[in-house]
Amino acid sequence: MTAVETVPREELEKLQLARLRETVGHALKTPFYSRRLGGIGISRPEDIESLEDLKKIPYTSKDDLRSAFPYGMLSIPLDDVVRLHASSGTTGTPTVIYHNQHDLDAWTALSARSILCTGAQRRDVFQNMMTYGLFTGGLGLHYGAEAAGLLVIPASSGNTKRQFKLMKDFGTTVVHATPSYMLHLASRMEAEGIRLEDLALKKALVGAEPHSEDIRRKIEELFSIDVYNSYGLSEMNGPGVAFECVFKQGMHVWEDNYIMEIIDRESLDQVEDGEYGELVLTTLCRQATPLLRYRTRDITAVYPDKCPCGRTHRRIQRFTGRTDDMLIINGVNVFPSQIEEVIMAMPEIGTNYQIVVQKMGALDKLIVKTEVGKNIFTDDTRDLKALSSRIAENLKVSISINPTVELHEPGFLPVAEGKAVRVLDQRPRM
Amino acid sequence: MTAVETVPREELEKLQLARLRETVGHALKTPFYSRRLGGIGISRPEDIESLEDLKKIPYTSKDDLRSAFPYGMLSIPLDDVVRLHASSGTTGTPTVIYHNQHDLDAWTALSARSILCTGAQRRDVFQNMMTYGLFTGGLGLHYGAEAAGLLVIPASSGNTKRQFKLMKDFGTTVVHATPSYMLHLASRMEAEGIRLEDLALKKALVGAEPHSEDIRRKIEELFSIDVYNSYGLSEMNGPGVAFECVFKQGMHVWEDNYIMEIIDRESLDQVEDGEYGELVLTTLCRQATPLLRYRTRDITAVYPDKCPCGRTHRRIQRFTGRTDDMLIINGVNVFPSQIEEVIMAMPEIGTNYQIVVQKMGALDKLIVKTEVGKNIFTDDTRDLKALSSRIAENLKVSISINPTVELHEPGFLPVAEGKAVRVLDQRPRM
Ligand SMILES: [Zn+2]
Ligand SMILES: [Zn+2]
Repeated sequence: MTAVETVPREELEKLQLARLRETVGHALKTPFYSRRLGGIGISRPEDIESLEDLKKIPYTSKDDLRSAFPYGMLSIPLDDVVRLHASSGTTGTPTVIYHNQHDLDAWTALSARSILCTGAQRRDVFQNMMTYGLFTGGLGLHYGAEAAGLLVIPASSGNTKRQFKLMKDFGTTVVHATPSYMLHLASRMEAEGIRLEDLALKKALVGAEPHSEDIRRKIEELFSIDVYNSYGLSEMNGPGVAFECVFKQGMHVWEDNYIMEIIDRESLDQVEDGEYGELVLTTLCRQATPLLRYRTRDITAVYPDKCPCGRTHRRIQRFTGRTDDMLIINGVNVFPSQIEEVIMAMPEIGTNYQIVVQKMGALDKLIVKTEVGKNIFTDDTRDLKALSSRIAENLKVSISINPTVELHEPGFLPVAEGKAVRVLDQRPRM
Repeated sequence: MTAVETVPREELEKLQLARLRETVGHALKTPFYSRRLGGIGISRPEDIESLEDLKKIPYTSKDDLRSAFPYGMLSIPLDDVVRLHASSGTTGTPTVIYHNQHDLDAWTALSARSILCTGAQRRDVFQNMMTYGLFTGGLGLHYGAEAAGLLVIPASSGNTKRQFKLMKDFGTTVVHATPSYMLHLASRMEAEGIRLEDLALKKALVGAEPHSEDIRRKIEELFSIDVYNSYGLSEMNGPGVAFECVFKQGMHVWEDNYIMEIIDRESLDQVEDGEYGELVLTTLCRQATPLLRYRTRDITAVYPDKCPCGRTHRRIQRFTGRTDDMLIINGVNVFPSQIEEVIMAMPEIGTNYQIVVQKMGALDKLIVKTEVGKNIFTDDTRDLKALSSRIAENLKVSISINPTVELHEPGFLPVAEGKAVRVLDQRPRM
């Protein structure tokens, strides 16, 4: 554990203030922030006198990031940039984050810290099954794992057969993947002739998709391993923003690198510890693309208590979903994760599912497609009918909407090799 | 240019000897080499008294590498390994190369040197379109480009639409890709609505596939850029073994990191400079997996003259193909590159082609499938017949085999997003 992870809060806040000043200094060199900060009378780093002064600064949104494309938020000469990660669409204005070598080094240090925080060690064999490339999930933890001295297998995503072969050939002990890919691997084990005894797996680090505590437990049981929750977003580098320690009770936000705020989405005021709200982050160790009070659109809450591990960096709850992901169905707010939670709690149902929303006249229609175990999918349609009614009832209790439930044979639903597409909103756009 | 690139040969050889001794020291710690070197009386680094002594050591083959799987050629504790690259098959024994941090740093330095050697500079925007992951093409030059201070866009392979968008959005000046992918990009430009003026492209670094001088010129013309040839193989790290300088007259082998020999494949004796033979390489800067006199199965020749750039590291010819790639058709040795050369020299034919070999009774049948330009693919079958006869004749002259030529409409042949599959040998295995 590095010393800064257990530093007393008071010292941590001093460090934050010093770094916030530096960050404001970098931000003032960008066209976007020099205008925005100038508008509220901040023109020098020293104009930030305390951490409280951060609250004077307006929030930065994803739209701001887009409107500043391509160089409006770049604070250094382009010649000094050594990497960029951009959103991967083929249409529309992308969002882009630039890094100089200092930024990459800081990100790598955070990634390494995050991996070690789960109890992984130099001697571990780390198979990185996240996509390598513009998506930050792959390269992010790759650099960190190498720096932490683990043996990195840069497997990248997909090719389940080869993933299993690598695991067996090199005795992989730690994997990094999306939760849905872990479930997919589990579902393929029998067909690929893999037994748990063939694997040396001890840990999975999962991220890039919101998932429930039930999904974590399911993966832990299926592989007899420990699963650790990872949080990051490309605007904040990528993975390595917050990570679970061995106590698996929420993710420590690395507060020496980020100032965290949780705000009410309506009033935009800060909420109390323990209350849910939108996570807002300010970078403290980034030179090329500093971001001040960036609205992540991710909903979480801070744990009010201290973690037994001794780290002083506060922990946040797993994410129920992104505000972007929230569905409004006949006026009711529904997070896909709520549906997932219900499904995962029912042992008769498989790990794959899909949520479809359609328009039926004036009304929205919610269809939940699931797969059932082989033994349950019999010809006795009464059993199936009873099961689908039970699912619909449980969902009704949780989300206040009565869905249409479809049961399918195992293997019917499309399989995710990378990030799962769980939600199909087929309603016409307004 | 780093000083070592222009160091006088005498000094270079002194450096080679010192590093060869170190390398033998590392090799002696591996089960494989301690046995093999012990068998010829080498048990200490000092037993290597001159570079001539290298010739006492037997060649190492790909089969040796396989038979030593998984740890027979590893010279350091597994805990000190931070990366591995393995051949990516899902069956059979893989080959694997392990790296410690020192090895990765040395590889990165070579990659950086290679990129800068083409005249690329810190201010260049480098879009890396090689696959990231176990394949060494992506990560290899990625690390080098970052270290050299270029702005790296880690695009990875595939998704042509997105590649064009990235090029336009960020003013990409240098790309890294397979030659076949460059041709594919060119063939898609019109359909994607991209004009040359939309791009800021100046250079392409191409590798991972043997290709002819005509292909290089074709790519240079299609994009109005300079194309530089790259050579590497995963057993020798990956890209960064040999690279062209701005004079584009053969690839400088980085002889401070590799001892190069060219041997006759029958007698296994060294050939003279200028004569073709199999490239044999010895690593000089690798600790985890040292390889002594490794037979690359790649056929090349050393340029006997000096390069105008002033580098003292010798240059090798572009590769006509790997010995593995060589087809034996009715007893005649044919390299796919010979066929490619003929096709590319005929302006009526498109850039995509495929070579199919089948068994017809006791005889082998060679089928060459090509695409022709839109304007040529008319209904006048006489024109097409005349063209295919002309292709067949040209091929006959070059490879002494009379092929069946198939002409297809543009877009008919499968398109390579990564490494092109040009050859389909459909003969039953003996
Ligand atoms: Zn903790
Ligand atoms: Zn030269």
